[in-house]
Amino acid sequence: MTSSDPHAPHCHNVPGDKSAVQPDKKRLVSRLNRIEGQVRGIARMVDEDRYCVDILTQLGAIRAALDGVAMQLLENHANGCVAKAIGAGNGEDAIAELMDVVRKLKS
Amino acid sequence: MTSSDPHAPHCHNVPGDKSAVQPDKKRLVSRLNRIEGQVRGIARMVDEDRYCVDILTQLGAIRAALDGVAMQLLENHANGCVAKAIGAGNGEDAIAELMDVVRKLKS
Amino acid sequence: MTSSDPHAPHCHNVPGDKSAVQPDKKRLVSRLNRIEGQVRGIARMVDEDRYCVDILTQLGAIRAALDGVAMQLLENHANGCVAKAIGAGNGEDAIAELMDVVRKLKS
Amino acid sequence: MTSSDPHAPHCHNVPGDKSAVQPDKKRLVSRLNRIEGQVRGIARMVDEDRYCVDILTQLGAIRAALDGVAMQLLENHANGCVAKAIGAGNGEDAIAELMDVVRKLKS
Repeated sequence: MTSSDPHAPHCHNVPGDKSAVQPDKKRLVSRLNRIEGQVRGIARMVDEDRYCVDILTQLGAIRAALDGVAMQLLENHANGCVAKAIGAGNGEDAIAELMDVVRKLKS
Repeated sequence: MTSSDPHAPHCHNVPGDKSAVQPDKKRLVSRLNRIEGQVRGIARMVDEDRYCVDILTQLGAIRAALDGVAMQLLENHANGCVAKAIGAGNGEDAIAELMDVVRKLKS
Repeated sequence: MTSSDPHAPHCHNVPGDKSAVQPDKKRLVSRLNRIEGQVRGIARMVDEDRYCVDILTQLGAIRAALDGVAMQLLENHANGCVAKAIGAGNGEDAIAELMDVVRKLKS
Repeated sequence: MTSSDPHAPHCHNVPGDKSAVQPDKKRLVSRLNRIEGQVRGIARMVDEDRYCVDILTQLGAIRAALDGVAMQLLENHANGCVAKAIGAGNGEDAIAELMDVVRKLKS
């Protein structure tokens, strides 16, 4: 089931040795590189005495971009690692861990 | 009033020529530099196939750090540019602009 | 300035005796009455064993409605009480209080 | 597995006929009743011309209480309906639905 889902990361989930190959790794890394550049741009705006509201508007855009990456990773995780754990009979722990992350991201 | 507030940015707010010298400029820039490094770290984590939940936890920390910078800039703006605009009789526009930013940051 | 703004509440802001007549009082109260009814509807949904996802979707709608009321009150406050305080030379305290509320609503 | 989890709702999830008995139904309903009363209190505060900031502070508390109920329902759902769907081989749909709700609640 999960192996045929192109959106699912390839999960390796042994206690003490967890890893996940994101299916859209290249695109995720390039989104993060762009966000990194945007944060650098904010630092420059502050340094160049740009108007507060312009900086804050830009900060709002970065926040939205970061949240987009987080949602993508969360979905990858749910479709991949959680689904795999369920198949292996470790669904309860995986779901508890998932809820834990959701709680952290919400606040 | 505002000139004696050490937390207020030095505001220059002529239509078409707005700028603001943040009072805590150095500290703000170094916080943003640190966040930039953290975003780079996230890209590396994705690239190195790190476990999704570890990446998401780190993303949550970056988001909180960005929100902290945004709140600081918002307070600087309110104590500086808004207060100054009020003194100059342009309070209404300044408050409308402030509310606009608050709305953007909330979502 | 503020007296001509139909969106500004009529503010009475003496330490120990603060009040504010909301300009859109009737509409605000009826929005809140509707939200009250929606919350009662949620309790009924739980009691009638409705499907979790349907309840959660409805909870999301209530949250958005509450946030809408909060933003309206925040804008009324900014345009009314804060603007009036500024006119009376108490702008700094009013802005500090405003930022305090914004911080509370953001989290 | 799920049947022994006291936090899991008793799920009935046939297309077109979905329901869920919340394990902590009584407590959830009484939390919602309390929130309903708090919303009624907000309407009264507006009607009695209470100070905006006091109303907004109270609105923040209600929002937190609603979010608490939402997180509880989300966890019940994950531990119950999602876990059950997984056991029945419908894990993928259940996880897609779960992520959908998480996305709605986040914004």
